Amino acid sequence: MASPGGGRGGSGVGAWNVQYFKPNLVDPVPSDIVISRGQPPKNIEQVAEEVGILPQELDPYGRKKAKVSLDVLKRLRHYKNGKYVVVVGITPTPFGEGKTTTTVGLSQSLGAHLHKNVFTCLRQPSQGPTFGIKGGAAGGGYAQVIPMEEFNLHLTGDIHAITAANNLLAAAIDARMFHESTQKDEALFNRLCPKNREGKRPLSEVQKRRLVGMGLGVVDDANTLTKEQQVQCSRLNIDPKTITWNRVIDTNDRFLRGIEIGLGPAEKGHTRRTQFDISVASELMAILALTTSLGDMRDRISRIVIGSDVQGHPVTADDIGVTDAMTVLMRDTVRPTLMQTLEGTPVFVHAGPFANIAHGSSSIIADQIALKLVGEHGYVVTEAGFGADIGMEKFFNIKCRYSGLQPSAVVLVATVRALKMHGGGPAVVPGNPLKHEYLEENLDLVKAGCDSNLRKQIENCNKFGIPVVVCVNKFATDTDKELELVVNRAIEHGAFDAVISDHWAKGGAGALLLAKAIVKATSEDGRNFKFLYPLNISLEEKINIIAREIYGANGVEFSEQARKKLDTYTKQGFSNLPICMAKTQLSLSHDPTKKGAPTNFTLPIRDVSASIGAGFIFPFSGEITTMPGLGTRPCFFDITIDPETEIINGLF
Amino acid sequence: MASPGGGRGGSGVGAWNVQYFKPNLVDPVPSDIVISRGQPPKNIEQVAEEVGILPQELDPYGRKKAKVSLDVLKRLRHYKNGKYVVVVGITPTPFGEGKTTTTVGLSQSLGAHLHKNVFTCLRQPSQGPTFGIKGGAAGGGYAQVIPMEEFNLHLTGDIHAITAANNLLAAAIDARMFHESTQKDEALFNRLCPKNREGKRPLSEVQKRRLVGMGLGVVDDANTLTKEQQVQCSRLNIDPKTITWNRVIDTNDRFLRGIEIGLGPAEKGHTRRTQFDISVASELMAILALTTSLGDMRDRISRIVIGSDVQGHPVTADDIGVTDAMTVLMRDTVRPTLMQTLEGTPVFVHAGPFANIAHGSSSIIADQIALKLVGEHGYVVTEAGFGADIGMEKFFNIKCRYSGLQPSAVVLVATVRALKMHGGGPAVVPGNPLKHEYLEENLDLVKAGCDSNLRKQIENCNKFGIPVVVCVNKFATDTDKELELVVNRAIEHGAFDAVISDHWAKGGAGALLLAKAIVKATSEDGRNFKFLYPLNISLEEKINIIAREIYGANGVEFSEQARKKLDTYTKQGFSNLPICMAKTQLSLSHDPTKKGAPTNFTLPIRDVSASIGAGFIFPFSGEITTMPGLGTRPCFFDITIDPETEIINGLF
Repeated sequence: MASPGGGRGGSGVGAWNVQYFKPNLVDPVPSDIVISRGQPPKNIEQVAEEVGILPQELDPYGRKKAKVSLDVLKRLRHYKNGKYVVVVGITPTPFGEGKTTTTVGLSQSLGAHLHKNVFTCLRQPSQGPTFGIKGGAAGGGYAQVIPMEEFNLHLTGDIHAITAANNLLAAAIDARMFHESTQKDEALFNRLCPKNREGKRPLSEVQKRRLVGMGLGVVDDANTLTKEQQVQCSRLNIDPKTITWNRVIDTNDRFLRGIEIGLGPAEKGHTRRTQFDISVASELMAILALTTSLGDMRDRISRIVIGSDVQGHPVTADDIGVTDAMTVLMRDTVRPTLMQTLEGTPVFVHAGPFANIAHGSSSIIADQIALKLVGEHGYVVTEAGFGADIGMEKFFNIKCRYSGLQPSAVVLVATVRALKMHGGGPAVVPGNPLKHEYLEENLDLVKAGCDSNLRKQIENCNKFGIPVVVCVNKFATDTDKELELVVNRAIEHGAFDAVISDHWAKGGAGALLLAKAIVKATSEDGRNFKFLYPLNISLEEKINIIAREIYGANGVEFSEQARKKLDTYTKQGFSNLPICMAKTQLSLSHDPTKKGAPTNFTLPIRDVSASIGAGFIFPFSGEITTMPGLGTRPCFFDITIDPETEIINGLF
Repeated sequence: MASPGGGRGGSGVGAWNVQYFKPNLVDPVPSDIVISRGQPPKNIEQVAEEVGILPQELDPYGRKKAKVSLDVLKRLRHYKNGKYVVVVGITPTPFGEGKTTTTVGLSQSLGAHLHKNVFTCLRQPSQGPTFGIKGGAAGGGYAQVIPMEEFNLHLTGDIHAITAANNLLAAAIDARMFHESTQKDEALFNRLCPKNREGKRPLSEVQKRRLVGMGLGVVDDANTLTKEQQVQCSRLNIDPKTITWNRVIDTNDRFLRGIEIGLGPAEKGHTRRTQFDISVASELMAILALTTSLGDMRDRISRIVIGSDVQGHPVTADDIGVTDAMTVLMRDTVRPTLMQTLEGTPVFVHAGPFANIAHGSSSIIADQIALKLVGEHGYVVTEAGFGADIGMEKFFNIKCRYSGLQPSAVVLVATVRALKMHGGGPAVVPGNPLKHEYLEENLDLVKAGCDSNLRKQIENCNKFGIPVVVCVNKFATDTDKELELVVNRAIEHGAFDAVISDHWAKGGAGALLLAKAIVKATSEDGRNFKFLYPLNISLEEKINIIAREIYGANGVEFSEQARKKLDTYTKQGFSNLPICMAKTQLSLSHDPTKKGAPTNFTLPIRDVSASIGAGFIFPFSGEITTMPGLGTRPCFFDITIDPETEIINGLF
């Protein structure tokens, strides 16, 4: 096999020579941004060199982050992939149980402590919640990506590019409907297909594609069209009631959840009710996460269905004429962003689709590049959003199906706090202090939680044929007996292994048991990864399989609206797509108040929508908010910046 | 004087050693993007080194653009500034007359041909028009900034950061009004000033500032406030009718010109009529253009007035509590972006405020850094948007007032086409072919245009005490006699010099006469720059001076609404601010159909608004659109990208 070229560490298959950092552990653990600031990052060009990325494959954005070219994939195409580890969680409390922290902590341990080649692949967080209540998403404590403020703010502009492309399409839809409704056939045709100096009416590429799609063949001069064909060519006749393409903004702005547009005098009364979603809920974000190249991204964009025409045919971004312009706006987004952890291991940050109306995982491209860079004996650790019933199910059935990548192991994160909640503890409500059950030892609650939610989530993991290691993410209030109980019950319920982990307080050193368990779990061959359902069954059947097998439902009840939509998508030829369930993450069922492992329930499907460009159908079980709001006292009150030193405080 | 340190070219005062490019001139001139693509740019680190920017002062964004630190200013503070040249235009046709092209062409000539140190300072264009009708703004032909697609698209993310900060404030305003209106006094106070574990109610910095402003002194624990003070502290009582802070988006989206927000069920009927502006119309863009440091930017943001409370007091961004969070989002925007021209001379791209509701010039910071880098014998060439009656007037009275920089010369761009229009030629309408008067020699129309609009614009320039060089920007259809006539009439009417320039077709070589004229104009001492009006007169008087002296009006007529607003701003203590007129650029008067140099008219002022953070009052003369739209066939139809080579076509 030929050498892939490049200097020191350039082979992408040998052991890396990485400069690790040793965090100065302080107790009590300081705030995330103070820890992040305490460790000056390596120049990003050094990080790239350490992991075998060539200088010409790197576009620095400042000194601490850089975009990495897909040329790495071409260069290393003949090399084997590393082990592929996905971190998922049990059904969480509203606070989350530390999946990202575990993902980073495990990586730091595999790299800085076991000296394995390891890459962490994370989602880029939405900027909205950073100034709302949730804060950032770079991990926490001594297991985080640095500099955390660059991770949490603009990064390398991908979300902004998605916002721009999304909104160009939205503006183009409304402008097109406006111009169609205010112009007569001839005027509209003259404007859309203007005469050139020779009297011909040449068409743009995207207009030609549309005519080909309409069965008119390759038309070079629109003068050759009949009057009727001219009208067909000019009028999309979009049915405004069917439009599913919303505008997006990367701000928590609840007043944009329902808006009426077109109230300006120049729009002549063509008003329409619509809404803004947060940018990460854009289908373009799901496309970025699932695409494998710029060309594939363009194809997916062209297929985006924005609604139907008055005859019920799907209308696409390509029909609007905006495919390539959107791709131009998103050109740089296909390249993942390289950063580093607090202990100096490499990180890719790339894409961050919503985990409810989309699949909630970081990008396929980042995973693919990382798997080549770490080499056959290396590790790529990534995470799947929400609880395992949602994030892991979609990770396997959607992301792995599109990528063709074989996962090697699952880390299932559990906390004593969440297990007590599932075991019958009182409700955990943000803003209210935790009840005493959560602050004192209570083995009964822990056991009941293990035997319900943890058991079911382990069983779910095993359905995919991949070894699952349960990671008990340690909190200061947990007792040794509680922690050990979880470990024992987890193994009882079918986990490959179960360990206690303390990476938040101790960094990679705190995750050594976890790292060793993962090394063991991934060293065994003969595991057979399998999907939960095939694609060639009906959409209803696929939904039923997920509801019964993963959620534990008796069956599914479709509303009339949902049935109608499923019929429409099937007629339009989209029944072979995978399913992306939009369900609460706070319960295995659709009811967020039902903890543990609910049984004897029917999953209601209220409505169904589709992301044809991304490539999935998403049924709604209950109301899903696609635009967070700002509370009375958002965290921006506590954010400060020193204009001299540029030091930021109050981000978390 | 001590050496400022740094390697080759690091002194910032000697002659630079720049690698120039020699464009391969083709006739007919190819499209802008084909020309741009034909010249591979230097690595941006080389450009930086050539002009004396130190490696630690540079943050590369990819290989072709980089942000430059304000540390350069500190390092070179003891050195003298270079010559400061501003490019302005006569009243344009709707197509524009080539100010940016002239700015770039002049720079290429001064640098690559006369071997002077020269920096070009340009505005970052809005992305909206790039996909609408106008196209990009990187110059054109053989006088442009490369790579033009990077210039016209995301650049280094400044506009996206402005969008994010602008919309965070907007979301915070509506959320605050919502929470104030749905919560009783005690609940609201408890949420805004929550108790900590010790039972104290510590306040954030921004909350403390507000209490100090209310005369309550430094409050460390909100428990010490009386009930009445608690209410004062918690309730801003914003009068929704007075809100002037709009949301923004960097897309041409006409359906957002008038919208109703808050129609979602969770907002409980708290709807409000508002609008989106295009991002470059945000006051934050004007602030970025006028600021001199991160600290100054934060101060300006804190002073932004978003409306009034029910008692008529101004409500600021600081009252909303979001000053520092907005500054955090805009932290990186203060650093200008370094690029290069087609002939290899350096360019700063920084800020791009609207030229109607703002002042339409690129940033003070970029000019300041560039003036130090070129050194005493070097040149900085920048431009002022719209016609000279608007752009130049604001450049001098607003931008130079805030920067304290002394301009050295004015370039006044004129075209035979625009002069014919002013001389009585038929209307020039976008989308319609030009009438024969514009394609054939017509000395009478040219002369009449010179003796009306050109004369008046030269007179206006001279009022500021700066030498004005008229640049006749040559078009292929101009005859020699027409061009010479303009040169002669320009000198007759008081220009320091007048030259014909052909930089669009020939690059820097085509602008040699212009470059030499500028060298001569700036070599004379004893010119006295003066403002048109002092700040310590009333707002009405300032508006009157601009209307009479610059526009040629007999006087000003204020609407009742305008008078009321002027009264309010005066009472609120803002009467000492400069004026930023919002007027059509298509006439010296307020009526876009009146060409030449209209007389005997009264300027109507319909309304007045204020950008207190940026630091000006803007009176509206007529309707000003702050959100462009998309036509029936926007230019996105012609934009294509090759996914393999990433080559973009159709941008212009």
